[in-house]
Amino acid sequence: MRVHNFSAGPAALPLEVLHRIQSELLDWQGSGMSVMEISHRSKAFIRVAEQAEQDLRELLAVPANYKVLFLQGGASGQFAAIPMNLAPADATVDYVNTGNWSKRAIVEAQRYCARVNVIADAKDTGYNNVPAESAWQRSGNASYLHYTPNETIGGVTFPFIPNTNVALVADFSSSILSAPLDVSRFGVIYAGAQKNIGPSGLCVVIVRDDLLDRARDVTPAIWNWRQMAADGSMSNTPPTFSWYVAGLVFQWLKAQGGLASMGERNRRKAEALYAVIDGSGFYRNPVAREDRSIMNVPFTLAKPDLDKLFLGDAKEAGLTNLEGHRSVGGMRASIYNAVTPDGVAALVTFMQEFERRHG
Amino acid sequence: MRVHNFSAGPAALPLEVLHRIQSELLDWQGSGMSVMEISHRSKAFIRVAEQAEQDLRELLAVPANYKVLFLQGGASGQFAAIPMNLAPADATVDYVNTGNWSKRAIVEAQRYCARVNVIADAKDTGYNNVPAESAWQRSGNASYLHYTPNETIGGVTFPFIPNTNVALVADFSSSILSAPLDVSRFGVIYAGAQKNIGPSGLCVVIVRDDLLDRARDVTPAIWNWRQMAADGSMSNTPPTFSWYVAGLVFQWLKAQGGLASMGERNRRKAEALYAVIDGSGFYRNPVAREDRSIMNVPFTLAKPDLDKLFLGDAKEAGLTNLEGHRSVGGMRASIYNAVTPDGVAALVTFMQEFERRHG
Repeated sequence: MRVHNFSAGPAALPLEVLHRIQSELLDWQGSGMSVMEISHRSKAFIRVAEQAEQDLRELLAVPANYKVLFLQGGASGQFAAIPMNLAPADATVDYVNTGNWSKRAIVEAQRYCARVNVIADAKDTGYNNVPAESAWQRSGNASYLHYTPNETIGGVTFPFIPNTNVALVADFSSSILSAPLDVSRFGVIYAGAQKNIGPSGLCVVIVRDDLLDRARDVTPAIWNWRQMAADGSMSNTPPTFSWYVAGLVFQWLKAQGGLASMGERNRRKAEALYAVIDGSGFYRNPVAREDRSIMNVPFTLAKPDLDKLFLGDAKEAGLTNLEGHRSVGGMRASIYNAVTPDGVAALVTFMQEFERRHG
Repeated sequence: MRVHNFSAGPAALPLEVLHRIQSELLDWQGSGMSVMEISHRSKAFIRVAEQAEQDLRELLAVPANYKVLFLQGGASGQFAAIPMNLAPADATVDYVNTGNWSKRAIVEAQRYCARVNVIADAKDTGYNNVPAESAWQRSGNASYLHYTPNETIGGVTFPFIPNTNVALVADFSSSILSAPLDVSRFGVIYAGAQKNIGPSGLCVVIVRDDLLDRARDVTPAIWNWRQMAADGSMSNTPPTFSWYVAGLVFQWLKAQGGLASMGERNRRKAEALYAVIDGSGFYRNPVAREDRSIMNVPFTLAKPDLDKLFLGDAKEAGLTNLEGHRSVGGMRASIYNAVTPDGVAALVTFMQEFERRHG
């Protein structure tokens, strides 16, 4: 029996996609082979790869002057690849720190750039809000500005796209495809696949053409955006199965009505969950209301000694992976695209019932 | 209907493994989730990860003073990671060039090392043999010696393990697990998964402990072997599905009797194929007999205008992906572990019949 899976990542996939994978696992498109068993350079796989790119472009309305890359190494790999592709070693680069994933990007950038300027840091509020843009202490000469639109652990989301004169670089790992996005505001958008795109091991990078010629010589070939764009993301063997699954997810998203429809559905899911939290004296989410994530909803119980009971009872009720991140504890419900409104409704009902019994 | 698949990579997987994946795709171990949908840090996945490592260690008899890493970026990623992990920027490093994949490793190393010394090059023989070790022009001060034990495109294999006083580094992508191997002779063994291990997007690195402390500061965190060893290859989200499939392949290999048994089976498969080639005036393999690969068998027809007919008829006979690499043309049969003796027998019969009709 399938459960409602609130994992932060690798995360739930649409059931329809899983059924499709299963049905053609041994004999893909009548080839007598699994899609895992064919060359990435075969015509059949290149059709899969190109269709996936085309569907992603359509979903996000990616302008023609952007390349879409399917790379390996995850967003964490891009933490290194971004400075190597965009800035010389003596450069200054600007980073906004809104939590765990911002910090990891900052630490990695420090290997590659003379000055990593943290132009805003939410630490004074315990990383429970987004620092007001007006107070950011920007460098005059930064090669780019990096931020994390959605912090997966803290559940903090930017309610705005920053304004900047330099290339805007954004780690959209946990919120890409959750709602429509104006790609034209960005220099680089990147996202690990394992939340809203597909299996782990794939990272999507969307980069504006004018940023493709800055790479340092020491950029590894498999992360050189210019070269990878020229080679259709196949300078080396790509993660073909993950790419194929991503393509199925993109087709599923289109069948759901695209990102406007998904955004509305996600907003309603999140509202239902925050309503039960805010409407109780038992559950609590610490994030400033205007900065709350619609993808990752962390919450605590008024009686933390009930955490284990909550998680155990939830699991018995078919609601899994609600543990908070190991660094913060408590609970977290990740409600990515593949988590259905029914799943969220079941969680809401469970939380209300749990509060009635133990609140 | 399943075919006999001679793809060079991504390549055939054992049918038993595919059946297992398919059967548990929607509900893995009774969890109500796919293995793709669970956290890499969950107890259930960590059991998968650790079992895979343990089985690989057992298959290859990996000594205790080696770490086994499961990384992203493929062998091509390690082409960059190896110099960064093993040598300072002003270092000399030694490479043996036996063909296409050696060359790619050399080109990438040139980004990172002051002197990449090609100590032997098979170009005089058209890359159809392994240069005699006695003639290698070794540097006196190399940080390591790199070679490619099996050239996937040329079908050239080292019949010996080189002797060296420096760390021996070997790209075993297309021959790992094809036969027993004395791991203790090596400093670093690495292999992209997509031939003999599992789906693409995973790279196994086996590294001796004393080589873990040389990494440059600019080594990307996800490729820092010391850090990855400390983090159980989970400094970032690993390619969980590929890792899981690799584990199933390792279990399958153990069930086949391990590498001694597979090595014998592979030797017989290759002998059958070379016998039909050498026994005809119609087919030809150019590689020196003692250096022939038991994994990748390239061959040409005496009448190259029949290439297309050969490939078309083969496909109709259920024998697929026999095209030679786009850089060399002709034919290539990759007969990795998952290609059965029956598959090779069917190919042999087809080749004999084709020669009778068109020779």
